Amino acid sequence: MESLLYAQLADNLIEHIQAGVYKVGEKMPSVRALAKAEQVSIATVNSAYAILEDRGWAEARPKSGYFVKRSSQSSIGLPSQIKVKTRPRAVTTKELALEVQREASSVKNRNFSCAIPDLKLSIASVIQKTFTRLSRAGSNLGEGYDATEGLFDLRQQVARRGIDGGVHISPESIITTVGAQNAISLALRAITQPGDIIAVESPCYFGLLQMIEAFGLKAIEIPADSETGMSVEALKLALQQWPIKTILCISTFSNPLGCTIPDEHKKEILDLVVEHDICLIEDDIYGELQFEGRRPKTFKAFDPDGRVLWCSSVSKTMDPQLRVGWIAPGRYYDEVLRQKYTNYLASPSLPQAVTADVMSKGLYDRHLRQARLLYKQRSEQLRDFARLYFPEETRASSPKGGLVTWFEMPKKVDATALYHQCRELDIRIAPGELFSISGLYKNYFRLNFANEWSSEREAALKTIGEHLKQAIHQA
Amino acid sequence: MESLLYAQLADNLIEHIQAGVYKVGEKMPSVRALAKAEQVSIATVNSAYAILEDRGWAEARPKSGYFVKRSSQSSIGLPSQIKVKTRPRAVTTKELALEVQREASSVKNRNFSCAIPDLKLSIASVIQKTFTRLSRAGSNLGEGYDATEGLFDLRQQVARRGIDGGVHISPESIITTVGAQNAISLALRAITQPGDIIAVESPCYFGLLQMIEAFGLKAIEIPADSETGMSVEALKLALQQWPIKTILCISTFSNPLGCTIPDEHKKEILDLVVEHDICLIEDDIYGELQFEGRRPKTFKAFDPDGRVLWCSSVSKTMDPQLRVGWIAPGRYYDEVLRQKYTNYLASPSLPQAVTADVMSKGLYDRHLRQARLLYKQRSEQLRDFARLYFPEETRASSPKGGLVTWFEMPKKVDATALYHQCRELDIRIAPGELFSISGLYKNYFRLNFANEWSSEREAALKTIGEHLKQAIHQA
Repeated sequence: MESLLYAQLADNLIEHIQAGVYKVGEKMPSVRALAKAEQVSIATVNSAYAILEDRGWAEARPKSGYFVKRSSQSSIGLPSQIKVKTRPRAVTTKELALEVQREASSVKNRNFSCAIPDLKLSIASVIQKTFTRLSRAGSNLGEGYDATEGLFDLRQQVARRGIDGGVHISPESIITTVGAQNAISLALRAITQPGDIIAVESPCYFGLLQMIEAFGLKAIEIPADSETGMSVEALKLALQQWPIKTILCISTFSNPLGCTIPDEHKKEILDLVVEHDICLIEDDIYGELQFEGRRPKTFKAFDPDGRVLWCSSVSKTMDPQLRVGWIAPGRYYDEVLRQKYTNYLASPSLPQAVTADVMSKGLYDRHLRQARLLYKQRSEQLRDFARLYFPEETRASSPKGGLVTWFEMPKKVDATALYHQCRELDIRIAPGELFSISGLYKNYFRLNFANEWSSEREAALKTIGEHLKQAIHQA
Repeated sequence: MESLLYAQLADNLIEHIQAGVYKVGEKMPSVRALAKAEQVSIATVNSAYAILEDRGWAEARPKSGYFVKRSSQSSIGLPSQIKVKTRPRAVTTKELALEVQREASSVKNRNFSCAIPDLKLSIASVIQKTFTRLSRAGSNLGEGYDATEGLFDLRQQVARRGIDGGVHISPESIITTVGAQNAISLALRAITQPGDIIAVESPCYFGLLQMIEAFGLKAIEIPADSETGMSVEALKLALQQWPIKTILCISTFSNPLGCTIPDEHKKEILDLVVEHDICLIEDDIYGELQFEGRRPKTFKAFDPDGRVLWCSSVSKTMDPQLRVGWIAPGRYYDEVLRQKYTNYLASPSLPQAVTADVMSKGLYDRHLRQARLLYKQRSEQLRDFARLYFPEETRASSPKGGLVTWFEMPKKVDATALYHQCRELDIRIAPGELFSISGLYKNYFRLNFANEWSSEREAALKTIGEHLKQAIHQA
């Protein structure tokens, strides 16, 4: 069977549904008619309709054919994998990214724009009390600069926690940083020169794209699947075609897709990394935020020979204001340490000590157990609200962990315009445009579900939904 | 008169004294004999001897001629200005710098290697109490990311304090950073591309040279005078000859020389900056640590049109573990902010809040008044100990502020060897080699005088002196 043909046919049919050619409840063309019209086999059409059914766009009614399905919770389809033209590009400067970051903490209850955890959970008072206790005891002040590699107690805790993710390293192989963004920036500085090409997943967290641009690097977007992340095949092709210096990706509960790269894919990707004699920068900040079951394994767990630079932080699990992160740079240890030294000599000590203390007492694990459950419920609540208030054409990611959901709208929706409309109303969303360097995802946006749902937040979603419907149904 | 000739003659005579050709107390060649031997005029020889007298190397005895002077407090001559071959060079990687930084806080009482303030002064308990009070009140936690530009309260305090240094800027033109090293690194990242040439003073604080190397930049060393800092003439020549991208210097109580660029020179240097359409990165971390009188004016005070990037921190005045610094980047504001955003999103909040609180309550000023007096006394005490325990050939800077003294030894002394010898004995010094990219200052070293003198510290100096004498007197 012509595998590309039926997938393409399915995509076309979905586009037609999105564009309103076939409306909800309407009968779709018969298999026979469609085969004739498209000049393809009956089998191809059957396969295309199977995909539509599978993705929740159509349903088969016995002896009647296929009908456009009414939206329901289970029928919010996953965002489609966009066909990225894979060539390296300079990232376009976006004031927008800086604005989103600047306003990350504004309009608290109507802010869905940033990947910030719920800061009202009980860990907040644990952090606060630990700060008070340690500062009263005079810890980590008055001792000169902290060691450039960072506070030993924290590195020890990080090494211990790594075991859950399959990471077996010593505290001596870890360097603390000012958050994970900083860990990744030190890694890029250590590994790359301006002009180098970095492979990133598409869609990609905009903070990473902005970094790549500011450092004079080029990004090549590798399409990511909503469930399994970065396409191994596309990566393979890109590596054959371009002198890619390193691969940068959020391996687990990626931002914005929420997808996790399966262990088998991780191994295949690392095989490619070895084959091309490059390295991989792993952003693992959401790794401990699984909704159910065990924490997924990291790339670092399968690191063959020190080629994985494992980066993480407590910004998504404790408090981003701590600015505590770390990196295990493998064979690049010396150069990353040197970058930290030349960039800022050493990290602030007390936030590191507070983090280590909270982790060592088991309070961190207790908090994670609570947070995982809450975030799962809140993620489902967002899905329910989206079903209720968003247009029926809405598609959304179905994250199994992390803090965000990725929404896809029909092509005619301009999510950047929506962002500006929302901003006028003191509502914040993250427009999809930020997550690509080649103008993709203009009809996508990202919402944070980590905070407790309130009538105010629900009303804000309703408002977003009204704007979306207006955008879809006008002209 | 041939101005270069007499200066050169003076240098030669000093070298001879250092080399033991003329020993302390011995008569030096008569003016007439020297003029004949060197084939120069009587006036030239008289001028050369005047310099020797002025620098404390020789004394005139009526009707007898010039004699090599016995070392005395006032007779420790200033370090000579080295003739730097001014061409841009890559900075040589030095594990040594990282080692010195790593051990900055080790062997507390026998450590003279780093420019760390006395952390036992009463400001320490003020900082500690403020941390406790603010964290107990739940300030600056649980609010998501701090704004990328930094905490407003701190920027406001910095703007107010700037006035003393002639800086009149708004809080909105300031960005907070993770210490001054980070401020400078963001500035360099914003302004330069790898391969660019940066003019630095010589000798230059090694943290800056290491940064220049790690960033793939080249440094050109501009000779600095022990009293007036960077030579305007040499800078002028270098700017004519090389495409210098920016000038980076510690304007006040420089590290290691302790010199301050006079206001007139500042204006001349800024004229050159405008003429060549470049900019100047001012590291002002010691600016508030004058021993007497008013705080010197900054380059920023004379900034014609936003070309000065003013950088500072509280690492030398409060506690380096806070990692609180700032930059006023003038016309480069947007690009520096972007660099901060892409490097680490935002600074830790609580240390900024603590700093702002301490400053706002006037406790910072009270502390500075105490620290200035203490550092002045301790600087003089170091001079006295050097006179007592170091070889009579010793020359030393005479800082009017800051935390360090720069020592020059006869050429045959290898200060890096001394560093290693001292390290074996758990004594730390900063070897002069670190302060140059072209192998200068191998017979120099830097000592910190900020800590309280104790019998243990005095004994450590005595040990250093013994090693120095041994180095000088061994074949």
